[in-house]
Amino acid sequence: MTSPSRRDLANAIRILAIDAVQAANSGHPGMPMGMADIAEVLWNDYLSHNPGNPKWFNRDRFVLSNGHGSMLQYALLHLSGYDLPIEQLKNFRQLGFRTPGHPENFVTPGVETTTGPLGQGFANAVGFALAEKLLAQRFNRPEYAVVDHRTWVFLGDGCLMEGISHEAASLAGTWGLGKLVAFWDDNHISIDGDTAGWFTDDTPARFEAYGWRVIRDVDGHDASAIKAAIDRAMQHDDRPVLVCCRTTIGFGSPAKAGSESSHGAPLGKDEIVATRKALGWEHGDFEIPEAIYDGWRASNAGTVREEQWNRLFDAYAQRHPELAAELSRRSHGDLPEGFAAAADAYIAKLQADSPKVASRKASQMAIEAYAPHLPELVGGSADLAGSNLTLWSGSKSVAGDDPDANYVYYGVREFAMTAISNGLALHGGFIPYDATFLVFSDYARNAVRMSALMGAHAIHVYTHDSIGLGEDGPTHQPVEHLASLRAIPGNDVWRPCDAVESAVCWKAAIERRDGPACLVFSRQNLAPQARDEAQVAAIARGGYVLKDSVGTPEIILIATGSEVELAMQAAAQLGEKARVVSMPSTDVFDRQDAAYRESVLPDACRKRVAVEAGISDFWRKYVGLDGAVIGIDRFGASAPAEVLFPHFGFTVEAVVAAARAL
Amino acid sequence: MTSPSRRDLANAIRILAIDAVQAANSGHPGMPMGMADIAEVLWNDYLSHNPGNPKWFNRDRFVLSNGHGSMLQYALLHLSGYDLPIEQLKNFRQLGFRTPGHPENFVTPGVETTTGPLGQGFANAVGFALAEKLLAQRFNRPEYAVVDHRTWVFLGDGCLMEGISHEAASLAGTWGLGKLVAFWDDNHISIDGDTAGWFTDDTPARFEAYGWRVIRDVDGHDASAIKAAIDRAMQHDDRPVLVCCRTTIGFGSPAKAGSESSHGAPLGKDEIVATRKALGWEHGDFEIPEAIYDGWRASNAGTVREEQWNRLFDAYAQRHPELAAELSRRSHGDLPEGFAAAADAYIAKLQADSPKVASRKASQMAIEAYAPHLPELVGGSADLAGSNLTLWSGSKSVAGDDPDANYVYYGVREFAMTAISNGLALHGGFIPYDATFLVFSDYARNAVRMSALMGAHAIHVYTHDSIGLGEDGPTHQPVEHLASLRAIPGNDVWRPCDAVESAVCWKAAIERRDGPACLVFSRQNLAPQARDEAQVAAIARGGYVLKDSVGTPEIILIATGSEVELAMQAAAQLGEKARVVSMPSTDVFDRQDAAYRESVLPDACRKRVAVEAGISDFWRKYVGLDGAVIGIDRFGASAPAEVLFPHFGFTVEAVVAAARAL
Repeated sequence: MTSPSRRDLANAIRILAIDAVQAANSGHPGMPMGMADIAEVLWNDYLSHNPGNPKWFNRDRFVLSNGHGSMLQYALLHLSGYDLPIEQLKNFRQLGFRTPGHPENFVTPGVETTTGPLGQGFANAVGFALAEKLLAQRFNRPEYAVVDHRTWVFLGDGCLMEGISHEAASLAGTWGLGKLVAFWDDNHISIDGDTAGWFTDDTPARFEAYGWRVIRDVDGHDASAIKAAIDRAMQHDDRPVLVCCRTTIGFGSPAKAGSESSHGAPLGKDEIVATRKALGWEHGDFEIPEAIYDGWRASNAGTVREEQWNRLFDAYAQRHPELAAELSRRSHGDLPEGFAAAADAYIAKLQADSPKVASRKASQMAIEAYAPHLPELVGGSADLAGSNLTLWSGSKSVAGDDPDANYVYYGVREFAMTAISNGLALHGGFIPYDATFLVFSDYARNAVRMSALMGAHAIHVYTHDSIGLGEDGPTHQPVEHLASLRAIPGNDVWRPCDAVESAVCWKAAIERRDGPACLVFSRQNLAPQARDEAQVAAIARGGYVLKDSVGTPEIILIATGSEVELAMQAAAQLGEKARVVSMPSTDVFDRQDAAYRESVLPDACRKRVAVEAGISDFWRKYVGLDGAVIGIDRFGASAPAEVLFPHFGFTVEAVVAAARAL
Repeated sequence: MTSPSRRDLANAIRILAIDAVQAANSGHPGMPMGMADIAEVLWNDYLSHNPGNPKWFNRDRFVLSNGHGSMLQYALLHLSGYDLPIEQLKNFRQLGFRTPGHPENFVTPGVETTTGPLGQGFANAVGFALAEKLLAQRFNRPEYAVVDHRTWVFLGDGCLMEGISHEAASLAGTWGLGKLVAFWDDNHISIDGDTAGWFTDDTPARFEAYGWRVIRDVDGHDASAIKAAIDRAMQHDDRPVLVCCRTTIGFGSPAKAGSESSHGAPLGKDEIVATRKALGWEHGDFEIPEAIYDGWRASNAGTVREEQWNRLFDAYAQRHPELAAELSRRSHGDLPEGFAAAADAYIAKLQADSPKVASRKASQMAIEAYAPHLPELVGGSADLAGSNLTLWSGSKSVAGDDPDANYVYYGVREFAMTAISNGLALHGGFIPYDATFLVFSDYARNAVRMSALMGAHAIHVYTHDSIGLGEDGPTHQPVEHLASLRAIPGNDVWRPCDAVESAVCWKAAIERRDGPACLVFSRQNLAPQARDEAQVAAIARGGYVLKDSVGTPEIILIATGSEVELAMQAAAQLGEKARVVSMPSTDVFDRQDAAYRESVLPDACRKRVAVEAGISDFWRKYVGLDGAVIGIDRFGASAPAEVLFPHFGFTVEAVVAAARAL
């Protein structure tokens, strides 16, 4: 083989994609075939990365938002020298291999974020680009642009149809994320066929309306046109860039190019033969000639780039040692030394002071107490700052260029907010938080799931946690949300009962580096509970004995949040044989060892009453068939909170009666 | 008082809003004050309705998508003569009154849809407009435009920031819903303050990009400008219309107009006095002079309009008796006579034939069997027609003008799809269904909740119901979704185990006129189960004994969907004392009388094993603390389904072992 052409290099992607999908008998060849030329130019001529170190902090971030085309990414990673040998590609979509059906950040080196749920990768990318902007503002100094990378994102028609693309693009425009470049795979085909029947937007005009710079009419199969477009995209101003690439899905397949038949199924053996012939590819299954590998790895530019950056960073560290140490700390996700001690001191003082405040207020107090220690804490609310109480005295909007910018006015965009949090968390350098009413976690639900799946260290703050919200009525009153958030694997849900538990759950969320937390707070004031030191320490175990019985408990009341006070009052009436368990996080409690769980909820005591202003079924896991639950199994109503609680049966009398009836 | 001016009429809205919010000490005065002039012109000069009969079928539909401004709607309903006396307004946001915090379609006459969760009212309105278009195509005849109404929707900045506004607007443009008119309350204020910091879209350009006609720069406080804009909007072509109204939030309040301080809190007594003075309003709290009422009810046009229409309809019924009868039937939500019998016959034949098919295929077969009887069945998929199997032989796209149009290519827009379904259902004349993968019910989650809250007869079809989806991996494999959908009050979730149960659940969903159903189907083939007639009949009770023990059961296996086969095989090994309960709908089963539930799950038998490829905690409500659950409490993985089930412990051996260990 003579020196390979650009098309040859791109065809290697196409061939790997069709071979892998065929071997798996499942997958999506059409997109990799369609975007191969764009990807080849981007990766070989522009992408600043180091295949030898996928975690190099200043690398460009590449996001495949149309994640069903995962073989494009695996081919790119393999060809450019990441630790993804050909055996992995041969076992595409098989158990235990690093080539799952959709790209998974926790499986494959070089995959920045998990994609597949359409539109979210794009929003993650906005988070990456925001992270870069904020870190650059904070840490760069003249001649020392130690944070200086781009975020590149591929997206398809599906991503653009999803509502989250609107929310994310709008914010990217408002924030002026000029180093974000999106490539639209404009192939006129989605799963149901020609998009003319359901996707008639003027997408370039739409993105211009968001304040983006739009590069139109790029031939996505012409390397020089792609190159010219990227050159233009990189002459950046403060606008993010959409590069509109006209492509042919399944490019190279004589029978299936341009058709939805290439989208989500193997081409078939005969068509693969025909495609090889059409592309002039004469090599066997999964066979890549050395010349092609050489073409992909010609410059070894990755190592060079990181070495250059390391030299720059060393000089920066000489000149600005404190900044360098701080950037290093934050990029590794380490908490500041002394954070835990400071937090514990704050918690101890809070227990001593015992203020009676709404837990949303206690949340704000915790932010105010912790944030000065944690410049990596960046967050905001979906247009409910005054209700969620997410602002603190050091808040500065990220929309400007303040080096200490840390507050995000997300507008009414819960889904993009949460996915952007995921992007901030995955980028590194930040602990993001976001906030809305608990009921509107629904709008963001799949992004919360993605936080948990990806192990993203994002903190989701949800206030107005029950019918206690009052007059806004059932559309705003969560009923099923605690149970349904707890149902997400790996998602730590906390619903604290007072200011102290609120401060503890914030600390736990900050310290949980490998996953998200949902912190759920009340609108209304909550009475402070008395605790000794051991009890304060036990809060972090998710559930603990708040008031113990004299001797073996004959009845156990289990409660969370605003209902703990109810349980305590009921226990006072039930007498000395009643125990009260406060259970701010069932997820965390369930992770405790069996002995601890038994010490809190002894198996022998089956007279158990759970009290929570949410659906009752959830609590059967603790009270069984023979216990009782005071819950709410219908939608709420519009009225003042103090009317609603008794109306829906949340009274001391009801708890006492339920306990006595067991 | 001399004859009131238009401004006087509008000020009545403002005064009622500020008085009611003040009385409730809670609510949103700013929006009603800002949109009062627009509302006054629209309602008094254009809206075709009949306050005496809020259910008149050909009425214009009015939707307040920015539902927090509910007092605007209550004031309009009250002033124009709906059954909403002043006492109701005086008790705004109080328990048992018809004036809840947000408009609720099931509470207040004249409220078409429940709003508050931002953006969804707008999407409901797209559903209303689509319903009108489809009914007009189907039923109108020359000189007999018996279906001919507009859909008017008010929306705020919040609605426009939400992603669902993108999805819904895009579809409205594609479908050419020329009788949909949206009024944008462009007041530059959202809860967090001046929107300049988080909402910089060029909204008119954005809507033009969707194919909308945009009327720009309307002074929302100038009645003649508003009138001119509406006149233009009504000269309709096939494009929906966005009327951009520049308004001042809190208009009339000297201190708070134009500020977020008027958005979500009472003005305060002093400011109300000042506002009354500024508006020249000299009447007491909640006091509306007769002249104002007369101005609002001057024409009694509503009754006249309905009478005119009744005459038209009578003539139509003479000329086209079958069409008239059919429209009448559909508008009342009655099923065709004979539907139940035909469905039962189909189900009986299916039991006899016992095909082994995926339940998604069985779903398509059920649609194919039922849809010819049900022209009101209109539905589609979010770009997964070939996977969800939602197309049937009679499907015709709604994008054109076919009189039998019944299929909706929603594109990748799950949230708008579901909210549009709600709109179609609430309009009347349709039983809508929509479809996506079960995991992507997340994207639509709050609209599913709204189906249940509103009692909307919408059918949500979710296929690829578990790790059985296989290679697409954890982003596409639902784990927590069955539990979390079941957690929504009033939402009937069905997960059938074979073709017969699939047909029964479709019938149940069609017959459930007062609420939604989620029908959850497998990707993979499921073995048919043997049943006698009584068992076939019992499926509709949600749970039933599929295989009984000899004598009293010593062990009960409970399963749903694909895991029923596993339970049946395990029971065969466990011997004659084992019972198998198939539980396709826990929601429906829980509604059965206690005696029936006891007959299926006798309290005395506590050796119970539940088997479902979803989170295990859910099943504790049936197996208690002493039973066992074979479930999956982590995210799935990318691999073929037949590899994943045993990998995650779904084997006959595991079920048998769990049972024997009890």
